[in-house]
Amino acid sequence: MSLPRIGLCLGDPGGIGPEVTFKALLNLTSLPSAEYIIFTYPELIDFWSNQLNLDINPLLSPSNTSQKITFTPVSPPQTKISLGQPSAANGDFSFRAFTQAIEQARQGKLDAVVTGPISKYSWSLAKISWRGHTEYLNHLYPQAIMSFWSKPLKVALFSHHLPLHQVPPLITRENLINFFQTLHQAISQTKFPIQKYLVAGLNPHAGEQGLLGEEEIKELIPAIQVAQKAGLPLEGPFPPDIVCRQALHQENTMVIALYHDQGLIAFKLVAFTEGVNITLGLPFIRTSPDHGTAFDIAGQGLADPTSMQEAIKWAYKLISNSQDNAL
Amino acid sequence: MSLPRIGLCLGDPGGIGPEVTFKALLNLTSLPSAEYIIFTYPELIDFWSNQLNLDINPLLSPSNTSQKITFTPVSPPQTKISLGQPSAANGDFSFRAFTQAIEQARQGKLDAVVTGPISKYSWSLAKISWRGHTEYLNHLYPQAIMSFWSKPLKVALFSHHLPLHQVPPLITRENLINFFQTLHQAISQTKFPIQKYLVAGLNPHAGEQGLLGEEEIKELIPAIQVAQKAGLPLEGPFPPDIVCRQALHQENTMVIALYHDQGLIAFKLVAFTEGVNITLGLPFIRTSPDHGTAFDIAGQGLADPTSMQEAIKWAYKLISNSQDNAL
Repeated sequence: MSLPRIGLCLGDPGGIGPEVTFKALLNLTSLPSAEYIIFTYPELIDFWSNQLNLDINPLLSPSNTSQKITFTPVSPPQTKISLGQPSAANGDFSFRAFTQAIEQARQGKLDAVVTGPISKYSWSLAKISWRGHTEYLNHLYPQAIMSFWSKPLKVALFSHHLPLHQVPPLITRENLINFFQTLHQAISQTKFPIQKYLVAGLNPHAGEQGLLGEEEIKELIPAIQVAQKAGLPLEGPFPPDIVCRQALHQENTMVIALYHDQGLIAFKLVAFTEGVNITLGLPFIRTSPDHGTAFDIAGQGLADPTSMQEAIKWAYKLISNSQDNAL
Repeated sequence: MSLPRIGLCLGDPGGIGPEVTFKALLNLTSLPSAEYIIFTYPELIDFWSNQLNLDINPLLSPSNTSQKITFTPVSPPQTKISLGQPSAANGDFSFRAFTQAIEQARQGKLDAVVTGPISKYSWSLAKISWRGHTEYLNHLYPQAIMSFWSKPLKVALFSHHLPLHQVPPLITRENLINFFQTLHQAISQTKFPIQKYLVAGLNPHAGEQGLLGEEEIKELIPAIQVAQKAGLPLEGPFPPDIVCRQALHQENTMVIALYHDQGLIAFKLVAFTEGVNITLGLPFIRTSPDHGTAFDIAGQGLADPTSMQEAIKWAYKLISNSQDNAL
């Protein structure tokens, strides 16, 4: 049986992405059986080996036959990368490494891509026209969905990186029904058994019978009813300040949040170190640790690799039939 | 020394408000030294005594001299109250009991009012023109502020019972500066030492340098700077999905959330059973348990009085110099 192939992007080369990736790989026995393909250039590995005083190169030829680590070359940026701060060179490299991995996944050469945290600011300095990973994937796959996974809580976002005032106009029956169907189809294509979706309302108390907003009555409730009639296991809408609590520790339940902070305020409280960002609705799985570049501590050896380890494990859980709880 | 005088309203008489109030009073030794004044009519005490099989009447003549329980008569509603569901009679009674207690507090006869949960729907059936307690208090005291308190997390809300789409237009320098000053003044008038305020952004990632919304740059940051120059201990804006985590377990720190769910999603996860709703900016203190009428379990003896006990203890903490941690 061939090993699942998981691509690893280091994220912004001046942030903590390289550190958490290498730390995760150095603890290889805790990771699932797979082939790990790092998208990098050799000097970057050397730079981080020296910076962290870690011996990373031997990882590229492990003796273990159920795990394998290789690298796919990405050409270096034209100017030096900046440690601990955003720069055009950092943005240029992290964008190219990412798109190269995605291209391989599109061609079926990777089953999953795990991406370290990029700096949206580095991308904008490098004149990249997408805000981040998710927006790029949304461009290739307009139905792509941003979701957050942990053992205690799973959340899918109906909308994400938008100014708050742009959210209410998006709450239409058509958009909602389309989202519910896309999400359910994407979940069904993974190997993970989500059995129930709890939908958050938009307004305080889910609108309280229209007293605190009409989107629930006019758009959300009718959309949920249509989806239920089509056989989707949806319930709601629930008051936004209650719904995540209701889903907590229900391992096969997913919350549908209507906007970024509605889902992430709860998720980051519950799963700060082990939370994983997963893009659904692609022909492959893409996962990412749920933290940023943390430039303030980059290069100091202080970064916690837990979320990166979890990102790798969740990638594996969603592409393989193994529901091994030890992972 | 005379005892602090704490008024107790039972909330909707058909919800769990009476049950949690009486259960809290039956455990009198866990409550602070005060005179407790229940706003009710005698038949309602009898109804709930029978319903819950609790002997409530002896409470009205306790032997303990550092605690005293009395009642102030409120005339009964014209039709029978409905157990376990909203009704006009329920709304009529809970509104009159509440306004009578508030009137006594305005006259200086009470130091604090603790209010059981009302049904906004009962109030609307009774043709009450305010949505709830906070809106009524806002009518009397336009500067009144809704806040939520627990040992691990304290949150003040810049806006509360509004449809989400009405929030972004309120984010103006003038409104914000006014709110920061009112809040700080109100806190200073209590006996509780808040030393720092962490302000949430409005948009995802607090706008990410304007990429995800401009309210932070145009309104919020300038307002925070003005308040800081005036000596207020404010910091921010912070990403909304991080700010409550930053404040967690910082006992003298308060989060300023810009809208209802931004504050309450976190608060209800962290302090579901012991959370307390406190109205600040009044000439007296008003606290309330952070749960609703729970009509589905009303009258069954299942309601947990923890939040009501905490509401009473917090009322005491904010009006007395005692920082007794045992309370």
